[in-house]
Amino acid sequence: MEKRFAELLTLLGEVKDLEGAAAALSWDQQTYMPPQGAAARAQQLATLKEMAHTKFASDSIGELLGQLKPWAAQLPHDSFEASVVRVAERDYRKAIKVPAQLVSQLSQATAMGLDTWLKAKSASDFAAFMPSLQRIIDLKVQEAEALGYEGSRYDALLDAYEPQMRSGQVNELFEQLKQRLIPLVQAISERLDRVDDSFLHQHYPDRKQWDFGIHVLSDMGFDFRSGRQDRAVHPMTTRLGQGDVRQTTRIQEDFLPSSMFSTFHECGHALYEMGLAEEFTRTPLADGASLGVHESQSRMWENLIGRSFGFWRHYFPRLQRLFPTQLGQISLDAFYRAVNRVEPSLVRIEADEVTYNLHIFIRFELEQQMLSGQLAVQDLPEAWNGKMSSYLGVVPPNDSLGVLQDVHWSVGLVGYFPTYTLGNILSVQFLETAANDYPAALDHLAGENLLAIREWMKEHIHRHGRKFTMPELVQKVTGGPISVEPYLNYIERKYAAIYDL
Amino acid sequence: MEKRFAELLTLLGEVKDLEGAAAALSWDQQTYMPPQGAAARAQQLATLKEMAHTKFASDSIGELLGQLKPWAAQLPHDSFEASVVRVAERDYRKAIKVPAQLVSQLSQATAMGLDTWLKAKSASDFAAFMPSLQRIIDLKVQEAEALGYEGSRYDALLDAYEPQMRSGQVNELFEQLKQRLIPLVQAISERLDRVDDSFLHQHYPDRKQWDFGIHVLSDMGFDFRSGRQDRAVHPMTTRLGQGDVRQTTRIQEDFLPSSMFSTFHECGHALYEMGLAEEFTRTPLADGASLGVHESQSRMWENLIGRSFGFWRHYFPRLQRLFPTQLGQISLDAFYRAVNRVEPSLVRIEADEVTYNLHIFIRFELEQQMLSGQLAVQDLPEAWNGKMSSYLGVVPPNDSLGVLQDVHWSVGLVGYFPTYTLGNILSVQFLETAANDYPAALDHLAGENLLAIREWMKEHIHRHGRKFTMPELVQKVTGGPISVEPYLNYIERKYAAIYDL
Repeated sequence: MEKRFAELLTLLGEVKDLEGAAAALSWDQQTYMPPQGAAARAQQLATLKEMAHTKFASDSIGELLGQLKPWAAQLPHDSFEASVVRVAERDYRKAIKVPAQLVSQLSQATAMGLDTWLKAKSASDFAAFMPSLQRIIDLKVQEAEALGYEGSRYDALLDAYEPQMRSGQVNELFEQLKQRLIPLVQAISERLDRVDDSFLHQHYPDRKQWDFGIHVLSDMGFDFRSGRQDRAVHPMTTRLGQGDVRQTTRIQEDFLPSSMFSTFHECGHALYEMGLAEEFTRTPLADGASLGVHESQSRMWENLIGRSFGFWRHYFPRLQRLFPTQLGQISLDAFYRAVNRVEPSLVRIEADEVTYNLHIFIRFELEQQMLSGQLAVQDLPEAWNGKMSSYLGVVPPNDSLGVLQDVHWSVGLVGYFPTYTLGNILSVQFLETAANDYPAALDHLAGENLLAIREWMKEHIHRHGRKFTMPELVQKVTGGPISVEPYLNYIERKYAAIYDL
Repeated sequence: MEKRFAELLTLLGEVKDLEGAAAALSWDQQTYMPPQGAAARAQQLATLKEMAHTKFASDSIGELLGQLKPWAAQLPHDSFEASVVRVAERDYRKAIKVPAQLVSQLSQATAMGLDTWLKAKSASDFAAFMPSLQRIIDLKVQEAEALGYEGSRYDALLDAYEPQMRSGQVNELFEQLKQRLIPLVQAISERLDRVDDSFLHQHYPDRKQWDFGIHVLSDMGFDFRSGRQDRAVHPMTTRLGQGDVRQTTRIQEDFLPSSMFSTFHECGHALYEMGLAEEFTRTPLADGASLGVHESQSRMWENLIGRSFGFWRHYFPRLQRLFPTQLGQISLDAFYRAVNRVEPSLVRIEADEVTYNLHIFIRFELEQQMLSGQLAVQDLPEAWNGKMSSYLGVVPPNDSLGVLQDVHWSVGLVGYFPTYTLGNILSVQFLETAANDYPAALDHLAGENLLAIREWMKEHIHRHGRKFTMPELVQKVTGGPISVEPYLNYIERKYAAIYDL
């Protein structure tokens, strides 16, 4: 059986190589590719993804898994061998349900979709993006039907990002959040003038913002021999292979927090990928447990740490030295309050911690409606604006700041958005558990203490990759299931103090 | 048969997609990849190349070609269909001779070889590179044996870069060159003091060199929507797909010509790739006729144009404005003579036009000896230094400036070097033919005239891709076979004037 297992690893390794190549091509597409290269790149990505799918969903892998399953079942659940067989088998059962042609169509539609979206977004022209989005939604419906589901069609797609979660459970968690977040947003909305962040809207030169980001990345433990940061329209993180993790950022010179917090956010993802056990290389274990868990790491660094008072007690003096004209007269307390300013606004990735989840509720609801056929793609902008108005009380002046703001749908990520809020929920559960082990980390969040938090996360979460499912991991790490209580308590406590509630 | 041909195009397209993906991964490896990513990248490249090879050397392509060959033979020789079938069939016959495992071993050995070479070169440590090189030479010998040959083993490898040329013919052409180039170098060596280039060895800031290069690239017709320039240790050009051509450069701040002429050189390659007929996309026709023809374009822009008096009559004032301290007091004539200074030196890519070919003779001879088994890899540095001494009268002080200077062998390019000198020979034949059509291009080589030359080359050479072999193309364009006379006449005339011979 050891020989069969080695054969399996060889085949799985080739699949991972194709996926890694596709990741490299996608990264390049978003960073350095010249515009005329888009069509050829779409074709290449389609070919790579189709070949990866065909190779993975092959009879030879199916037969090996069939032979290895009884053997693996007798090994410890968390052994490398049992975990590879278990996770590969779960993926395999899903993969054989999707025809190779559909995979190829999806890949081509989404590669061209990205290109179309980039142009439509910059021209704020939803009509230009509509045919691409229609095509993608149609294909995702086909994919969901091919995969099958018990409850709603949405579940089939959600499972790709958040295995073992169902939209019913998500709706339940989100309802619990709404009950306390909406009153909180209303209470804060009556005292918006308590926090002034006008000084964050001055001119902050690109180069200095970049340098500050790189400095904090180093403190967080980002290994520049095993990764790099580049610029892209949409911040993202991707693993090209063992020892090669790339994150991107975009810098706005007229608003300091934008790049800073997205840099910390992406670094949370990057540290997860950098922290995977090395033996997982070229196996299906070499990824995060789920997108929610992945997001717990990025949101933790962005918000729980990056927007904490302790963090800025350490880093604000450095920022003041970099930007003496802009920040020299600003107190630490005023800066802390400014970067935690709450205000219902248009753009998700620039939203504050409190209103952020409302943006997610909107996307989650619209996706469910589009997939069930309740909402036509052409009616999407109106539906979007309607929900923005009712949840957040603001309406986008154009589609670039509205329905076109996110890259996700253009690249086929449908069913992905709820994982952001799941990540918010989990981030507090994980960090509070870490704080029990290492209280100093939370007391004084800087320099060496950032590394201590990173080490704790690596030890308890990162290195396990996909060995455990999200529910298993949450149980193992926190001793209980996913729960909104710690998150809501954290949010209410923090913002009551800032807004004198 | 049209349906069969369409099937062939689909299969060939998938092979090209894999090759394009591999090109993207190689480009990234040389530009942006973090160092710890090397091993995973080597593995990915090996997998991609093995899959491309397996897919191309498959029975399905063999059967289609067998069916299509009689049909294609009745079509015009230069029709798209006949050309695709003819060129694919030629490639296929070679490809089925090389086992997939050997392709994979070569790919992995050369990807790791590049990494080892980069480190060995910077440490000037040939011993560190030796095991990699030994492995590569062993595999290239296996490849040559698998491919088969009539005369010498070298021919099997040369054919990959210069189809239909044999090492016997190359030796003959090179002997003709030696008879007139060696006396010329000797004559010049007695009057080295006639040309002073000390002012080129001042400090020339990186950014301004970069900007000047970009300006000339634009004038030459480099399309930045379909390509880009980046930095890398070794200047190179690669096509990632239709509308996506990348070239690299490296800038030395203490020697102006280094980056400038390598930028023009790589742009010659890039314009060739940008000029291929669009219908060739995703077919085997989408490449240069041979490396010699490719090199004729790069050497033409680097030397015949880039080092001509007419070119600098136009561009020198701009260069003086960029570098007033360094060049403000220098006359156009002194500058022209300086960038054409001849002196036997250590590094091929910085060698002048006259001694350059001597560097090629050395590599060509050493390669032949290594492949035939006459020369052991461990004896290579000594053999290198010996030939440097006898051909050029100089001996490298270390291996970094000697046997480790070129990237080629580390990435498996054995049998490639002679194409540089073939390119020199062809460059003069092609440009003199163009000058018959368009004398003004040669009289005043600047701005719009650069574009006129580019258009002529595109019309007569670039757009044909691999439709014609090198001998066919040379006959078609110049009306005769490859010949050293025009090149030798050009060199002798130019340098007699500069050195008062």
